Amino acid sequence: MSPEALYAELVTLVREEAILGSVAATLEWDEETNLPPGGVENRARQLALLAGLLHERAVDPRRVELIDELAGSRLCADPGRVEAVNVRELRKAYERERKVPRALVEELAEITAVATAAWAEARERRSFAAFAPHLARVIALKVAEARCLSNGGDLYDALLDDHEEGASAARFDELVAPLRRGLPALLERARGSDHRPDPGVCRGDFPLPAQREFASWLAARIGFDFERGRLDESVHPFTTGLGPGDCRITARWDAADLSVGFFTTLHEAGHGLYEQGLDPSQWGLPAGEQVSDGIDESQSRLWENLVGRSAGLWRFLWPELVARFGCLAGADAEAVYRATNRVETSLIRARADEITYHLHIFVRSDLERALLRDELAAGDVPAAWEAGYRKLLGVAPADDGEGCLQDGHWAAGLIGYFPTYTLGDVYAAELGAAADRDLGGLERALAAGELRPLRDWLADRIYRHGCRFAPAELIARATGASPRAETLLRRLEARVERLYG
Amino acid sequence: MSPEALYAELVTLVREEAILGSVAATLEWDEETNLPPGGVENRARQLALLAGLLHERAVDPRRVELIDELAGSRLCADPGRVEAVNVRELRKAYERERKVPRALVEELAEITAVATAAWAEARERRSFAAFAPHLARVIALKVAEARCLSNGGDLYDALLDDHEEGASAARFDELVAPLRRGLPALLERARGSDHRPDPGVCRGDFPLPAQREFASWLAARIGFDFERGRLDESVHPFTTGLGPGDCRITARWDAADLSVGFFTTLHEAGHGLYEQGLDPSQWGLPAGEQVSDGIDESQSRLWENLVGRSAGLWRFLWPELVARFGCLAGADAEAVYRATNRVETSLIRARADEITYHLHIFVRSDLERALLRDELAAGDVPAAWEAGYRKLLGVAPADDGEGCLQDGHWAAGLIGYFPTYTLGDVYAAELGAAADRDLGGLERALAAGELRPLRDWLADRIYRHGCRFAPAELIARATGASPRAETLLRRLEARVERLYG
Repeated sequence: MSPEALYAELVTLVREEAILGSVAATLEWDEETNLPPGGVENRARQLALLAGLLHERAVDPRRVELIDELAGSRLCADPGRVEAVNVRELRKAYERERKVPRALVEELAEITAVATAAWAEARERRSFAAFAPHLARVIALKVAEARCLSNGGDLYDALLDDHEEGASAARFDELVAPLRRGLPALLERARGSDHRPDPGVCRGDFPLPAQREFASWLAARIGFDFERGRLDESVHPFTTGLGPGDCRITARWDAADLSVGFFTTLHEAGHGLYEQGLDPSQWGLPAGEQVSDGIDESQSRLWENLVGRSAGLWRFLWPELVARFGCLAGADAEAVYRATNRVETSLIRARADEITYHLHIFVRSDLERALLRDELAAGDVPAAWEAGYRKLLGVAPADDGEGCLQDGHWAAGLIGYFPTYTLGDVYAAELGAAADRDLGGLERALAAGELRPLRDWLADRIYRHGCRFAPAELIARATGASPRAETLLRRLEARVERLYG
Repeated sequence: MSPEALYAELVTLVREEAILGSVAATLEWDEETNLPPGGVENRARQLALLAGLLHERAVDPRRVELIDELAGSRLCADPGRVEAVNVRELRKAYERERKVPRALVEELAEITAVATAAWAEARERRSFAAFAPHLARVIALKVAEARCLSNGGDLYDALLDDHEEGASAARFDELVAPLRRGLPALLERARGSDHRPDPGVCRGDFPLPAQREFASWLAARIGFDFERGRLDESVHPFTTGLGPGDCRITARWDAADLSVGFFTTLHEAGHGLYEQGLDPSQWGLPAGEQVSDGIDESQSRLWENLVGRSAGLWRFLWPELVARFGCLAGADAEAVYRATNRVETSLIRARADEITYHLHIFVRSDLERALLRDELAAGDVPAAWEAGYRKLLGVAPADDGEGCLQDGHWAAGLIGYFPTYTLGDVYAAELGAAADRDLGGLERALAAGELRPLRDWLADRIYRHGCRFAPAELIARATGASPRAETLLRRLEARVERLYG
């Protein structure tokens, strides 16, 4: 068989798995948006059956054969060819699969499901104790998994790399060092200032139907294509691709607070633009997929923070907002801009401002590193959490509910994931700065309602490339330089300067 | 292996197919309610993949082996046992599968898909000519299918029996003879009367959100369980079971006409009550499924017509309606009752009243019989349609759009299906009369807002039995006598008497 014929066979096999995956994604979307309580049990049965069918396809020996044969063929001689990219990435994926024994994968799936339920119950009771043994079991399994993946190297690095190719603890520390140094000073400056942006300007009577309509208008305005997607409501907003031409984002609205729906919509629409901008001819293949969690997060955070928290956008939106929401009549764009950019220490990561956000992340990344390296016992997490918050944010939780139980990541086995949030913001800042240069001033464009040029710039620099380049290389190609945290820090410094003088 | 172990294995195999079927049903529901236009192509790919997986399971030789072995086992010695019912019905199903060659099944699937698209286009242009060759091909394939199923008997009977077990053209003719004789006289009587119910009372300003809320209230009031189901909107209302605990109905609302949403909701909720009342322990097995199209239709028509068009229900609903819809202030329950029961010849089946409805069905069942028996050529359908309408309803369509192109059943290969609509009404009338006796007066109960006793009576007499009894036997057990059309005719006579004096 010619390499072309082998490649066609491989694409057919991989696409079948992708179609089954898109079926599962449809059921998961429905579960979050529509499923009646009585249907939960059957939904679990449906998804379990699909997981089995997906697994059969992932371990199909014919697929491995094809990949190995193609890797040495003339079709993959030029690494820039899309066929070579797909074969390279598919090979990485099955080599990863091969390193971790099936029994461990299944045990992880089972133990993290149990631990997640235990975490939810513990959080409800705001007490860590009953969750501690579950976390200990998850950590033990993640250590075992990291051993399989590490090739004898550092265990935590292996997990970091699993979420963001090329990442390591040392590289992360080096990258974020300016933030570790600079953010506490910015927080102090805001705290010490006499200026106090009034958060009350975003509170009022914002009827939900009008908010939903505004959210759709805004998502469409930045380029989200409703012919190939939807915007719905769910408790935990998310974005999912159900196949080419069907990208669904969800948001959450609060009738008393404009900012909840506004920022969840922009965040998820940012993910949605990335999904909709992938190469449809490569759907289901690595070259048609998001390259990493960090890059994906950079897209959502870019629209949420660089666009959504800019004075220019609020100026442009103001007439729209006043026309739709009577309660804004007495306010002005500048006041809303200030309110949505105020800096404030808080205990909850998900509600943190752009500056303190990363301090929350550092507490978590320090702790998970210690947990994985056996320098911290699961039972000692609450005390270590409190110490970390006191040191980095100067506050301490009153109980575990607003402390170490606030996030479900560790229960779900996501160790080495939190750093991708900060990486996402670092990437977003670099992309924003480059786009600012290329588009002749982002702030000006936003104030003029020119929202599509930014989307088109991102489509060209990020979306269409799929998994062709590793994350750091993708950013370097898009911006002309390797990502550095100074760009983010400078942007945040300028904002504090403007708000707190 | 013991019969119990064999049976357990069979149940596992059949349930796996049922779970996959429920996955496909979820995707189909989503297609009608949520799918963005761009997702249509991928949805077709997803469904085609699932159809393949379903087919593999349906023809699994192990399943056939198990069924054959169990059929002769002590577990199936007592035909009343649920195990015996399931084995019997599963055997029927695979024997049916076995009779029709795979190539014919696939050709039918393809040709009916093409014919349905051609029908939609022809209907758009209101011209039959371009659709004629498609219809001819479908008929030829249905003749071939009927030959496989008929065991040498009448071809049309084979298709009728395929939709409603035990049905034949002769038995249908005998059953509906009183309607063929009696309905035209009732129509004449209404036409000749000086009384003219005013249909305008259902027209006005009925805001959609209030209508949707009222529809949910009404569906819940008659017993539809929203913990185990949903009510949504779709162009063509339908009911689907996505697994135990997840039954979804859809309706259609018109802001200018109360009756559209009212009757589509009651109709679909009637199907939904049946689905929700099936035995959950038998889910995915014949004993946990609707027994036939005719019985399923009897459940929707019973709630739509016997309940929804009763003076008692309108009296009970009146205060609710007036509180929700200001435009009803000047009207009264009796006027709405009369408006929703007026008798009127029309050209469109889907909008026909209860009396003329069956005349529309008779035109279709006469024609499809002639088509299948090669007594009528596809190209001659428009002329035969016009002749049928002139004879039975005294009207003639101005073009094919409001004539023989109004229904897509034949394009979809549904020959022998239309009679189940009339059977459904005959069954519904029998069930209504029996419930009237057992519950001490249905009209009185409805006027008092006692809607649940009827649902509970149907649950006991119909829902919980699944496929245990053939349709006519199920009705006979529920009502104490074999179904006869006189009961329906008498009910309609009484109504004409009351409305038209």
